[in-house]
Amino acid sequence: LNYPSKLVEEAVLEIAKLPGIGKKSALRLVLHFLKSGILPTQKLTFALENLVKNTINCSVCFSIADEELCNVCSNGKRDKRIMAVVADTRDLMAIENTNQYNGVYHVLGGVISPIQGIGPSELKIEKLIERLSQDAEIKEIILALSPTMEGDTTAFYIKKRIEHLNLKISTIARGIPIGGDLEYTDEITLGRSILTRVSF
Amino acid sequence: LNYPSKLVEEAVLEIAKLPGIGKKSALRLVLHFLKSGILPTQKLTFALENLVKNTINCSVCFSIADEELCNVCSNGKRDKRIMAVVADTRDLMAIENTNQYNGVYHVLGGVISPIQGIGPSELKIEKLIERLSQDAEIKEIILALSPTMEGDTTAFYIKKRIEHLNLKISTIARGIPIGGDLEYTDEITLGRSILTRVSF
Repeated sequence: LNYPSKLVEEAVLEIAKLPGIGKKSALRLVLHFLKSGILPTQKLTFALENLVKNTINCSVCFSIADEELCNVCSNGKRDKRIMAVVADTRDLMAIENTNQYNGVYHVLGGVISPIQGIGPSELKIEKLIERLSQDAEIKEIILALSPTMEGDTTAFYIKKRIEHLNLKISTIARGIPIGGDLEYTDEITLGRSILTRVSF
Repeated sequence: LNYPSKLVEEAVLEIAKLPGIGKKSALRLVLHFLKSGILPTQKLTFALENLVKNTINCSVCFSIADEELCNVCSNGKRDKRIMAVVADTRDLMAIENTNQYNGVYHVLGGVISPIQGIGPSELKIEKLIERLSQDAEIKEIILALSPTMEGDTTAFYIKKRIEHLNLKISTIARGIPIGGDLEYTDEITLGRSILTRVSF
């Protein structure tokens, strides 16, 4: 691409490094910034700098937090007897947005993936075991990991490591999505949801 | 949405103000910034601040420039006898990237659009006439505007205003796009390209 200005080129190249944004979209954003001017652009850049400089990991559950404890861990109304183990903050937010869960969380920071070189030691699994050993309040662990190869591997690994603690261990239900169509459901999901049928 | 942190929420809301980015994509970007850390994020925020604070409009053609004259106007190898009138910098870049044009530009800053409240006085049309009256070098004007209602209106308006200057006035060719399929071309384009057929 030929750029009319060096500063435009630099901004386009930086924006195009973001996931899912190509050079054409980056150029559209640059022209948007130029149109909106200094103050609205600075509101964005200040928010981003504030974000990366001042957020930390919650010292208990390793979710993103503004202070030592995240919103969930510092909330006295949450049920501290149930803990959902999730891969990352996005999954935590997805569960929060269902408004169906009032327990606490433990954020692993990913899932075991030999292909990507992520082993158990790269994740907060030791921290989970430490937390479970020290916190007598916790009675149930929900392994809320995606039903993928990596998610299942991680769930089995964690189950093996915490079995001796005598906690109730559960996993999120798998099956046909609500509103889904039998005909268009993949064979593995449909097959498994027949094998794991529930009484009605 | 429930956010785990106020700083995350603020960053998501600022990013989601950008055109074409919703809250889900904004959240994905926020988690990307948190993962990549302070330095890569600052490279982006510095580039954006630099962009909005230090770019100006070229004093001759009103394209985006780092100095008083843009890359094109300050380039001695460009043919100053031909001028393409374009709506904005994106169109200028699109023409530059064809490598088929070696003239200069005049950037209007938009097109006439009564619906959006943009009249001739909101655009650099007076500046164009001023420039054409003062610059004896210019021999041909290419009205390189999109073949839309607004683009055509703007082209006709400019033609009326500059007719007395005795310049050659042309417009970019309209017709079936190269590689396009007759069958799938819209009727207006196909009809006009029969009426405006060229000898072969």
